[in-house]
Amino acid sequence: MRNNVIVGQSGGPTAVINSSLAGVYKSAMDRGIEKVYGMRHGILGFLDEQYTDLSEHIKSELDIELLKRTPAAFLGTCRYKLPEIYGHEDVYKKIFAVLDKLDISCFLYIGGNDSMDTIRKLSDYAVIVDHPTRFVGVPKTIDNDLAVTDHTPGYGSAAKYIGTALKEVIADTLSFAYDTKIVTIVEIMGRHAGWLTGAAALAEGEDSVGPDLIYMPELTFDMERFVDKVKEILPKKKCITVAVSEGIKVANGKYVCELGEGSDYVDAFGHKQLTGTARTLATVISAEIGCKTRAIELSTLQRSASHLVSRVDITEAFQVGAAGVKAAMEGETGKMILLKRVSNDPYICITDMHDVHKIANAEKTVPREWINESGDYVTKEFMDYMKPLIQAELPPIQVEGIPRYLYMRKNGTPVT
Amino acid sequence: MRNNVIVGQSGGPTAVINSSLAGVYKSAMDRGIEKVYGMRHGILGFLDEQYTDLSEHIKSELDIELLKRTPAAFLGTCRYKLPEIYGHEDVYKKIFAVLDKLDISCFLYIGGNDSMDTIRKLSDYAVIVDHPTRFVGVPKTIDNDLAVTDHTPGYGSAAKYIGTALKEVIADTLSFAYDTKIVTIVEIMGRHAGWLTGAAALAEGEDSVGPDLIYMPELTFDMERFVDKVKEILPKKKCITVAVSEGIKVANGKYVCELGEGSDYVDAFGHKQLTGTARTLATVISAEIGCKTRAIELSTLQRSASHLVSRVDITEAFQVGAAGVKAAMEGETGKMILLKRVSNDPYICITDMHDVHKIANAEKTVPREWINESGDYVTKEFMDYMKPLIQAELPPIQVEGIPRYLYMRKNGTPVT
Repeated sequence: MRNNVIVGQSGGPTAVINSSLAGVYKSAMDRGIEKVYGMRHGILGFLDEQYTDLSEHIKSELDIELLKRTPAAFLGTCRYKLPEIYGHEDVYKKIFAVLDKLDISCFLYIGGNDSMDTIRKLSDYAVIVDHPTRFVGVPKTIDNDLAVTDHTPGYGSAAKYIGTALKEVIADTLSFAYDTKIVTIVEIMGRHAGWLTGAAALAEGEDSVGPDLIYMPELTFDMERFVDKVKEILPKKKCITVAVSEGIKVANGKYVCELGEGSDYVDAFGHKQLTGTARTLATVISAEIGCKTRAIELSTLQRSASHLVSRVDITEAFQVGAAGVKAAMEGETGKMILLKRVSNDPYICITDMHDVHKIANAEKTVPREWINESGDYVTKEFMDYMKPLIQAELPPIQVEGIPRYLYMRKNGTPVT
Repeated sequence: MRNNVIVGQSGGPTAVINSSLAGVYKSAMDRGIEKVYGMRHGILGFLDEQYTDLSEHIKSELDIELLKRTPAAFLGTCRYKLPEIYGHEDVYKKIFAVLDKLDISCFLYIGGNDSMDTIRKLSDYAVIVDHPTRFVGVPKTIDNDLAVTDHTPGYGSAAKYIGTALKEVIADTLSFAYDTKIVTIVEIMGRHAGWLTGAAALAEGEDSVGPDLIYMPELTFDMERFVDKVKEILPKKKCITVAVSEGIKVANGKYVCELGEGSDYVDAFGHKQLTGTARTLATVISAEIGCKTRAIELSTLQRSASHLVSRVDITEAFQVGAAGVKAAMEGETGKMILLKRVSNDPYICITDMHDVHKIANAEKTVPREWINESGDYVTKEFMDYMKPLIQAELPPIQVEGIPRYLYMRKNGTPVT
């Protein structure tokens, strides 16, 4: 009797991706599923028959709570796109053979665009070969760039982290700004969409100035206008804070972070050195204006800071996981669970689902009208959209002063 | 009647520096002081007669709680060392004239080594000219490099942040490590002392592997041995995490971050580009070993993350502020308040004081025996020393999902 579930995680982690995993596990167990398997490192590991029985790792309600608060992909993740079915039937045969071996009725995949592509292909193949396993996608990405869903789990916590970190950075800079002017450039993740960078505006409040300029990849970056803008603001303020997406590009299509490469710089060790976007802009500003600059990359922390999550976000992440199991068990396949905002104030949001064919490989960027006219800040609409998603906290479970995680064991010790 | 207090903040901020300011203010008010003035941007601003009446900013018990949780120096800070008295009497006359004008009986200065030098010089001058104002130093620095005191307020919170962030980074890296090996280099503050970098070891626990290698500036960094060490570990693990102080130097006395400069690299904008320590080491590893690397700078956040403070630390920061006022009001001058650890388990720590002449300009580095023999990790003694200082939390006061701060007002709006 085919009555087992398998779940995988794919793409860049978020601070709440494991809350979706917890939602899948808890919901499946509550619904009488016999075994919930976890793929190790997504479909890539699954192709090597790397999977684990989740009941070996989750043994109590406390473990569920720990799992929700554990950063990064508990099961391991991958960046791997399945090949097209046509011409690669062997790959699919292999996957489905393992699904049969494990008696899998429902296949859940937690991820972003590429992961939805995986769900699309697997559900297509199941239709072609008339296979009973159902395939449902569970949305996840800090980038918030999935189509159709109002927002993606992971975004709210990343936005909250970015807003909080920016506010701290601004306070730090301000406290130094006495007889020197300082321009701080903060680099935020986002190759194609500015959702995360826009969250820098959350630092603004009656108790804090926010960033002065926000540059998102939706618009072409104009270096000259940027320098002029800084020159224009500088006489009025002691410090300027600029939030930039890593993915901003200039008119010729080059990323800003590639601009410093012209000189074929090879360092003392004979290795070509890549400079970040923030560092490049800071260099330009100090060269053109001569003032003190600081370049800060929020780096990995913006997607892994489980010590500072939004309770709305971590709860919704759990809900979409649970909704995924429900949908698959009720016979849905080739669908992605999504979040549908019913109202903004009070914030009411429900889960729904949508044909994954209309989601996979599409990309939702920030609408032009949510960026101000001069292209260097967000509008009130953006703020109204974002604010409900960062509300409230779910603190880590602290043991001896450090957050405690659930960990993947092998013979009782953490897998390394 | 000389019955006012003035307090200043100096040097790099910490996440709890304002808790000391709150301790000074509360204690002074409780002890019947009429006015507590705050210097704007430390002694540098004071020389320009920049000060403010703190009662204009702190109006309630809630404001005290907000102030404690506000990152960066609320009063503004400076990096400024007073000139020697001899030959610069005019500077001192100016300072003391303002002290007289404001009827200051007690002068408190919250800071590190350079700030204690300020206390030393001012108290010396007061003795020379037989002036009644008392000068007391309140210790503060994330670097933990002040002499005589067991530790410095600010260190515990920075250590807690570093341990937490490292644990998150390691989880993130591990979740990607399937078919590729990854070496992550995390750069941590500390030019001369490895106290902060050693805190990376807090990421280690039964639920998490810690960093594999920790390099502190107390020991000369050997690039060849480092590469060999990574090569030695790599076959046994999927990922390696290395924590390095920004201030590590190689045998010829050069900082590691200066090593990439040999090529006189000038970027496309004609500006010389400096590379960080982590980036330099990552470049070496990918060049020498060819594996994937990541370079992460914890940057400003390690000293400004007031959203993740140690309750032990923020409480002690308050206590040293209060103890400073008590000491000065009882007639002490030329002293620094210090923390004296009475026992480790249970952790008991009291305040005491010490002649500032024996503290200023001295530097406490990590003892050799608290670093392992091969010079690339901390010992149990280091961990035992550090652990009590990171215990428990004091969450921010959250308003609409973002931490709320007390802010310096001018006509009701935040000073920018």
